[in-house]
Amino acid sequence: MKKSDLGVLGLGVMGQSLALNLEDNGYYVSVYNRMEGDEKDILDNFLSGKAKGKKVIGCYTIKEFVDSLSLPRTILLMVSAGSAVDAVIGQIKPHLDEGDIIIDGGNSHFKDTQRRVEELNSPGIHLVGMGISGGEEGARFGPSMMPGCSEKAWETVKPMMESISAKADDGSPCCKWIGGGGAGHFVKMVHNGIEYGDMQIIAEATQLMSKTLNMSAAEISETFLQWNKGKLNGYLTEITSDIFSVPDEDGEPLVDKILDAAGQKGTGRWTVITALELGIPLPVITSAVFSRSFSAFKDLRKQVARNRSGREIAKSPDISTFLHDLERAMIAARMVTLAEGFFLIKTASDVHGWDINVEAVAKIWRGGCIIRSAMLENVISAFSEGSGLTHLFESKEYFGEIEKSVPGLETIVDIAGRSGIPIPAMSSAMNQFYTLQSKDLPANVIQAQRDYFGAHTYERVDRPRGEFFHTQWKK
Amino acid sequence: MKKSDLGVLGLGVMGQSLALNLEDNGYYVSVYNRMEGDEKDILDNFLSGKAKGKKVIGCYTIKEFVDSLSLPRTILLMVSAGSAVDAVIGQIKPHLDEGDIIIDGGNSHFKDTQRRVEELNSPGIHLVGMGISGGEEGARFGPSMMPGCSEKAWETVKPMMESISAKADDGSPCCKWIGGGGAGHFVKMVHNGIEYGDMQIIAEATQLMSKTLNMSAAEISETFLQWNKGKLNGYLTEITSDIFSVPDEDGEPLVDKILDAAGQKGTGRWTVITALELGIPLPVITSAVFSRSFSAFKDLRKQVARNRSGREIAKSPDISTFLHDLERAMIAARMVTLAEGFFLIKTASDVHGWDINVEAVAKIWRGGCIIRSAMLENVISAFSEGSGLTHLFESKEYFGEIEKSVPGLETIVDIAGRSGIPIPAMSSAMNQFYTLQSKDLPANVIQAQRDYFGAHTYERVDRPRGEFFHTQWKK
Repeated sequence: MKKSDLGVLGLGVMGQSLALNLEDNGYYVSVYNRMEGDEKDILDNFLSGKAKGKKVIGCYTIKEFVDSLSLPRTILLMVSAGSAVDAVIGQIKPHLDEGDIIIDGGNSHFKDTQRRVEELNSPGIHLVGMGISGGEEGARFGPSMMPGCSEKAWETVKPMMESISAKADDGSPCCKWIGGGGAGHFVKMVHNGIEYGDMQIIAEATQLMSKTLNMSAAEISETFLQWNKGKLNGYLTEITSDIFSVPDEDGEPLVDKILDAAGQKGTGRWTVITALELGIPLPVITSAVFSRSFSAFKDLRKQVARNRSGREIAKSPDISTFLHDLERAMIAARMVTLAEGFFLIKTASDVHGWDINVEAVAKIWRGGCIIRSAMLENVISAFSEGSGLTHLFESKEYFGEIEKSVPGLETIVDIAGRSGIPIPAMSSAMNQFYTLQSKDLPANVIQAQRDYFGAHTYERVDRPRGEFFHTQWKK
Repeated sequence: MKKSDLGVLGLGVMGQSLALNLEDNGYYVSVYNRMEGDEKDILDNFLSGKAKGKKVIGCYTIKEFVDSLSLPRTILLMVSAGSAVDAVIGQIKPHLDEGDIIIDGGNSHFKDTQRRVEELNSPGIHLVGMGISGGEEGARFGPSMMPGCSEKAWETVKPMMESISAKADDGSPCCKWIGGGGAGHFVKMVHNGIEYGDMQIIAEATQLMSKTLNMSAAEISETFLQWNKGKLNGYLTEITSDIFSVPDEDGEPLVDKILDAAGQKGTGRWTVITALELGIPLPVITSAVFSRSFSAFKDLRKQVARNRSGREIAKSPDISTFLHDLERAMIAARMVTLAEGFFLIKTASDVHGWDINVEAVAKIWRGGCIIRSAMLENVISAFSEGSGLTHLFESKEYFGEIEKSVPGLETIVDIAGRSGIPIPAMSSAMNQFYTLQSKDLPANVIQAQRDYFGAHTYERVDRPRGEFFHTQWKK
């Protein structure tokens, strides 16, 4: 009997989709799902359903599953991040041989991945920590994939992974080796952080459109459709247009019936905590994480709203001017978000010695993933012209593109402020843009205060860095 | 020979000052400092210097130090947070008896304090995790003190601690029992977080004054002196006035010679990470932490500034209107900062079962500490009128006080935006104020997007919480 090219362990929505995607591309795939509790029928349902008549081999024990794979074995884990990954690795490890490869395709924390790489080192098993973005549809027809592992392991799995990945418009696979250890999961985490930022920026824009301009859902849908033809072109712009066009059973817009309490599964929060640990500022993504938290406090907001005095919402005089400004505000804010994400990736890569090719990261985000957008071309162009860039704002072209759009952002921030409409992500983006172009920040005042009350000392502008001074400030 | 009432271990600036403060208040104090390396002369220098002729007993070994104390022993550790605390506890523990009390007066992480409380439980030694604020001067003449421990331990040390603490204007000691375990260090951590926010808000104000109004250091100093007579009255306002009045050797303002790269020792960052772990939004304090990080990237900012096109700074037409708006902006922003800090304390208290009396916290912050200000009276008043408040914005009075000042904040945000001057903390405060009074946030759009690409489901406004729906959005 022919051995399978790869085994998929874990048949949730993503696991099933990836198995079928692999099969589409000519591979023999073994599949396994634990037979316990409410999961006991998942394997059989898959085999008799979506996988029927395909080159998919169902396995009912771990041993059978492992034995069905050609050597070196490649096993793709699609289980929930956390202890489940450790548990499953513990179950399959005794059956594996040196040189076998485990791909963890879930949203594992990069520190867990680093630890597991070490743990699997001595039995000689390769772990590929691979971030996968694109949701169910991406997994089925071509996701964006971010693998981190040894170069040797990558050589083995590369053809399979490239074949199932999304392809950018230029035909190149949206799947490139990111770096060693946890580099792949790290980059996927930052991808999700940027996703938080982008989604919040879009949400803020829709609120301004409905509250300030009284636009209907159909008009908002149409506007996003138009924007999708320009610089904002991308997945989130496209689906926002779809969302505002879907009616509820009563014919009213469904989106208006959805409770404004956003969930989060943790990768946004991880991104912010990681940035704090590395000393990297991450204002837009953080404001998006906080905005989701605020949204969850629905009862508190209703309570506080009772204390609010009525106020007029300042109406914008001209809808087309306003929408033009709003488009530019979103372009500026989203380009700032990309810049803060890449600054984090650059820094982490240096700290962990991953040597991540940031241009390659931008390239694999062009297809398959949630944050794909035309603005990634600006990122690619900036990094290709100056690969030594620490921050995208150092690129004259990238900076200039934002600067061109910033007047729109300023106007929107002003109008939102006068209308009492919160736009924390767009405001953070504007402030960050101003901050990073400030040769002089008022941090000298903070240093003076710290020296005043805590004798923390300060450096001087007219002395070399590393010389510290203390003053007796109190008279 | 008379035994000492208390021993101070660690004779840094804070330890020395607290020992002298205790002695001033009639207590016999033993002191010890390790005799190694560059610290070998510290004890002798202290005994022959500031402590000369005082009821201070110098000890040269741990055993001698412990034996010099009356029972139950009370030992105040003033060593650097982190492993040094564990090391010192390990050294003294073998010499202690059941019922003895260790006070950790450093900025230990509250989770470390929780762990140490447990570890010391079985030998029956009490650990008091006590936050101390006020810098050197506070420690010497009356700091604000935030003790967390068992009520039994508190009964023993309360008279000594109250006697050396600052006193509020009504005469009450700025030292009250906060709660069990790590509650004291937790509250001190949040205090420092608020300090970050307040300092950033003030720094932003000074930059607007110098850049937008071309005010001189002397004029800025004078303005803060005036503001210190109003609602902004407090320590940071006062020292900012002092700071802008101090000349360098050449007669120019010293503050202008200080490098704008702010340091941070970690408590601000800890506060933000803790808030993220608890799901509590903390926008102002976070923007202050990020602003310090941005300031540290001085070379990057200089590099980016080269890409900047020249722009006119919008000048405000009228200085007195501008300063009035700026005063109101600072009041609003700082009251928002206090609210976010207390929201975090409230939530953590519930999660950890500390039962923290938030009104008492506000009361002990009125004297001795860095963030003492007239605005704490609003906090006290809000909590005393409605002790069941989850968030200060639920108080009509507290919310109204901010609302009154918000037009000033709106104007300042607008002017700063048009001038390209970053004011991330003030902007965050304004956005937070709007967010929490929003019955409806655009998080429904985010939920729709998450359901679209990840089948994450959503709740509906017309159905009970806890019912989840999924839609096939794509056409």
